[in-house]
Amino acid sequence: MTDMLSPGARIGILGGGQLGRMLSVAAARLGFVTHIFEPGANPPAGQVADRVTTAVYDDAAALKAFAESVDVITYEFENIPTEALDLLEANCPIHPGREALRVSQDRLTEKNFLAGLGLKTAPFADITDLNSLKAAIDQIGTPAILKTRRFGYDGKGQARLRGPEDAEAALADMAGAPAILEGFVNFSHEVSVIAARGIDGQVACFDPGENVHRDGILHTTTVPARLAPAQRTDAVLLAANILNALDYVGVMGVELFVTSEGLIVNEVAPRVHNSGHWTQNGCAVDQFEQHIRAVAGWPLGDGQRHSDVVMENLIGDDMDRVPELARERDVALHLYGKAEVKPGRKMAHFNRITR
Amino acid sequence: MTDMLSPGARIGILGGGQLGRMLSVAAARLGFVTHIFEPGANPPAGQVADRVTTAVYDDAAALKAFAESVDVITYEFENIPTEALDLLEANCPIHPGREALRVSQDRLTEKNFLAGLGLKTAPFADITDLNSLKAAIDQIGTPAILKTRRFGYDGKGQARLRGPEDAEAALADMAGAPAILEGFVNFSHEVSVIAARGIDGQVACFDPGENVHRDGILHTTTVPARLAPAQRTDAVLLAANILNALDYVGVMGVELFVTSEGLIVNEVAPRVHNSGHWTQNGCAVDQFEQHIRAVAGWPLGDGQRHSDVVMENLIGDDMDRVPELARERDVALHLYGKAEVKPGRKMAHFNRITR
Repeated sequence: MTDMLSPGARIGILGGGQLGRMLSVAAARLGFVTHIFEPGANPPAGQVADRVTTAVYDDAAALKAFAESVDVITYEFENIPTEALDLLEANCPIHPGREALRVSQDRLTEKNFLAGLGLKTAPFADITDLNSLKAAIDQIGTPAILKTRRFGYDGKGQARLRGPEDAEAALADMAGAPAILEGFVNFSHEVSVIAARGIDGQVACFDPGENVHRDGILHTTTVPARLAPAQRTDAVLLAANILNALDYVGVMGVELFVTSEGLIVNEVAPRVHNSGHWTQNGCAVDQFEQHIRAVAGWPLGDGQRHSDVVMENLIGDDMDRVPELARERDVALHLYGKAEVKPGRKMAHFNRITR
Repeated sequence: MTDMLSPGARIGILGGGQLGRMLSVAAARLGFVTHIFEPGANPPAGQVADRVTTAVYDDAAALKAFAESVDVITYEFENIPTEALDLLEANCPIHPGREALRVSQDRLTEKNFLAGLGLKTAPFADITDLNSLKAAIDQIGTPAILKTRRFGYDGKGQARLRGPEDAEAALADMAGAPAILEGFVNFSHEVSVIAARGIDGQVACFDPGENVHRDGILHTTTVPARLAPAQRTDAVLLAANILNALDYVGVMGVELFVTSEGLIVNEVAPRVHNSGHWTQNGCAVDQFEQHIRAVAGWPLGDGQRHSDVVMENLIGDDMDRVPELARERDVALHLYGKAEVKPGRKMAHFNRITR
């Protein structure tokens, strides 16, 4: 498929959360009609989509019908079961492709892939039992973080080791799941590059944003990030390197630590990324439209920004700030339509245009 | 209702065209859930709305059920039958209110209303038959335009009179509908003010845009418009004057002719307006969100723009330009999801960020 998908074509989106919701709106803006596949009832994306299928990922009939109803499939999250992907792919093209999912679904595979490209990562080791954990602590040192290889996000499935004495408790936290130990990186700040690659191999990156986390969840992204010109170039080339190696189609979030020894890759996400939400109010083509353009075979936007932006997440009770924020000048609110406010739940974000 | 409607509340939108579609997306961005009422099947707005009711405006049961399912009702077009409004309003608040509709549904009423505020309009006369038309021509002169009092838009329901000899043919074009004769105005250019008024009476205006029409349909809007500072102030004050007089809630489009004798009001539209589409890529809060904010009792955005923009409509076969436009830098495309391309049909627009 090198042709542009025509307006009126149908785009299937796996996952009906806020990312699927904002992808759906971007797709509609380009004239596409969207169909959401989501196990949970009343997904936020369903409020702005043409169709919603409510079914689990091992419902083969539902997956097949979904795949047959659309012209291309994409997704808002990387933890899609392999069997579901097999079924879908037999009936419809999926972008980004399987290789990107295979690599990013497993922290160990991802780290090995990045190292294989000659990119720097935090020191890491495969952990299968207490012995391998103890050996890894000897090699990597502490503090360190033990993480499940699969299905972790927003700080979930992680345990900190302040010293070797924390080994057993941390391992117990993994509940038997395969894990990796990651050494701490002495970084000054974290940035992320939202990179996109088209079906024709064209790569476009948005300006790197600087991320601040709170309690393991992204709190703010500020654009422009503090980066020397050479670092900025490095960040963008490094991201392009990753996308090209995966023959990637779509938007990818690449998180980088800025250190005195250069940039270290923290992790990659084969999808639109929370740290790219600023593009909605900073660029003519935002990350959601950029992703849709890529998977639909359209030319990419160039990533140029017209404004500086600070993005801030509204999590749980932060929603109480909405009436006040609505009064503020240069603030653009983006609410996710989630019925229930829960602690730690991403409910909305806002972009403050700063220049 | 002076409270802010809470996220999760339901907003009903009468009309499922492109304006309803963009209103629906803006409402979702503020966490609202939308319900479209539209007689035509598969309306563009339905692709990005939570619910769609397909029913005609004299289906009392459907209107009542619609009104009862939402917390507030708004609309994308002013020609809603009075009986339908009566039924809806008995069950749910409607913004903008009845007075704005009464005035704008009838060109004669509108002209008299504007004149009553001391605002300048084109010379006009009520036309009931050939005698009154001839008398009006004597008074106003030619060239002039005969227009139906109701249900005209985008140049429909209009006949030009080059000289008195065109009177009978022009009147025949009206097919017996009540009409007014409007004299030509010698203007240098047309601008429009997209003005908003909140439930608390707060007024906010976007920067005036300069409009160019082709074949009676808006072709481009350029912001900033060519206006002297004093004209700019006049335009905004005049718009505020109109909104205050109507105790208006929502966004209104006010079209103005710029002449050597000052600003002349062409017409007003009690809704979001094609000439305000540039705000989507020029402002933190665009006209669609501004309208939703007003009808939901939220504070208004201040109308400040972060970028200069030229908006251009894509009409009929202009859609063939989409692949080329998608390649252009600083161009943001907005497609309407209409299945069929027809001559004269508004299919999409794009905003070019020029600074």
